[in-house]
Amino acid sequence: MGVAEEEAGAGDLSWSEVTPDAARRLLLAAVEAFAERGYHATTTRDIAGRAGMSPAALYIHFKTKEELLHRISRIGHEKALHVLLESAGGTGAPAERLATAVRCFVRWHADQHTTARVVQYELDALGEQARAEIVALRRRSEGVVREIIEDGVRAGDFDVPDVPGTTLAVLSLCVDVARWFNGAGPRTPDEVGALYADLVLRMVGAREA
Amino acid sequence: MGVAEEEAGAGDLSWSEVTPDAARRLLLAAVEAFAERGYHATTTRDIAGRAGMSPAALYIHFKTKEELLHRISRIGHEKALHVLLESAGGTGAPAERLATAVRCFVRWHADQHTTARVVQYELDALGEQARAEIVALRRRSEGVVREIIEDGVRAGDFDVPDVPGTTLAVLSLCVDVARWFNGAGPRTPDEVGALYADLVLRMVGAREA
Repeated sequence: MGVAEEEAGAGDLSWSEVTPDAARRLLLAAVEAFAERGYHATTTRDIAGRAGMSPAALYIHFKTKEELLHRISRIGHEKALHVLLESAGGTGAPAERLATAVRCFVRWHADQHTTARVVQYELDALGEQARAEIVALRRRSEGVVREIIEDGVRAGDFDVPDVPGTTLAVLSLCVDVARWFNGAGPRTPDEVGALYADLVLRMVGAREA
Repeated sequence: MGVAEEEAGAGDLSWSEVTPDAARRLLLAAVEAFAERGYHATTTRDIAGRAGMSPAALYIHFKTKEELLHRISRIGHEKALHVLLESAGGTGAPAERLATAVRCFVRWHADQHTTARVVQYELDALGEQARAEIVALRRRSEGVVREIIEDGVRAGDFDVPDVPGTTLAVLSLCVDVARWFNGAGPRTPDEVGALYADLVLRMVGAREA
């Protein structure tokens, strides 16, 4: 519930881990620009301009455009992993933990759909080292979901013939919310989260479902 | 089965509806360039160069870069809709039709993941009229899946509390295959299709599952 409340209240990523304020403004401007035009079509001049700063002022904080993307991608992935870890870590039954994890993870991808899209679609633009770091974060998120599913199978609560495949599908379903979610659409992030928690319990053949 | 065989054999989109040969080469070059660098970072000069042609030769076939994207998007969406219509149109029980539709739609998105990504992620780059045409094609695909689910509910074969939400989730799950599918990964398009058909039958609470 702690995470649920925090996320519901957050509205947008606070990026509070980014200091000073000028660096935070530049990151937010970069997210917007990458989302609108794509990473490769965006220049550091565009980003500085959106943040109301000069290109020279940008270079004080970020040496390259890739460094901006890397920072955005790391914070986005860390935040998503944090949401999963917090929501999945309870002491409840596997079905309860899985439902909470999916609800929070989906809500996060709906609330943060602009950042989440950049983070997902521009992965190939990262250099080798940055990419490896992000892939490791993604593996950890995958591990959190896989472990809950394994717990449920072990407890006899879930019926899952293919655990890695089902883990992949559950994460894919949640992540893709960032692609289609539209704040002006008929469903709130909470409603999508509740619907998806139910659908995922069905996917794992949870006894309650 | 007709579609399954056709798709399995196609490997890549043949784009055979595009003539003459030079126009087809330009479309294929545009798909590659948009996938690698994004629509906004790609110039018509880049596309002509990849196709081994001059920019002037490109303009004989396509007046603008947007016309190329529009053509790619329309063919991609029509092809995906065709796969759904063919596979969903049988006389079998709803569960059988839904499983076949998901298997074929997923396989298509895995086989054609490069084109499918361009088609999905660059939608915002289309002008108003082109966008409206593509949105109409997407509604038709959604309608095909929704109708099978409604048939299943009516027949008492499926248990679906939220038909529009479940339809959206099923399509989202299938479409997102294009994002993560990797030809070098451990699963073939056929294997992903089979896994997903089973998961979707669970999502709709099919009696057999």
